[in-house]
Amino acid sequence: MKARVYVTLKAGVLDPQGQAAKHTLGRLGYGEVEGVRIGKYIELTMDETDPARAKERAAAMCEGLLANTVIEDYRVEIEPEDADGADGAASEG
Amino acid sequence: MKARVYVTLKAGVLDPQGQAAKHTLGRLGYGEVEGVRIGKYIELTMDETDPARAKERAAAMCEGLLANTVIEDYRVEIEPEDADGADGAASEG
Repeated sequence: MKARVYVTLKAGVLDPQGQAAKHTLGRLGYGEVEGVRIGKYIELTMDETDPARAKERAAAMCEGLLANTVIEDYRVEIEPEDADGADGAASEG
Repeated sequence: MKARVYVTLKAGVLDPQGQAAKHTLGRLGYGEVEGVRIGKYIELTMDETDPARAKERAAAMCEGLLANTVIEDYRVEIEPEDADGADGAASEG
């Protein structure tokens, strides 16, 4: 089972990497860019068949290692085991 | 208008950061983790009202700066301007 984890800086936390990207984009001709925030996108492959359990474990991994919860938020999505025919919902179990 | 950009390493490209995270997760008791791939999640705020144009410009930014297309893939999603009441589709314009 796969989990997708999105780790983003909390609102109000400075993002120097994003600011540098915004500046460079402006210089490259992308003046319409008003803001850039850069976070992490993590794909976890897990030996786990229960989507609820997988989500719970992935959230625990975020708390323990993958995110710095003082300054970052995270969101976990579980990808259904059989992608074909499935409709985006976690239907394993 | 907001664009969400996902930058991921192409299949077959080594991900030392992901391997280190996998190793550490195993040590922390998350032995069910079989693989970790770490990419970037970028939120762009753009002064642009046409979603098709915004998507095209964001893709050009990926090609030019945000992704290293030799080793990385990217995907762009456009967020509708008015989030409330909208249904996840880009309906601006």
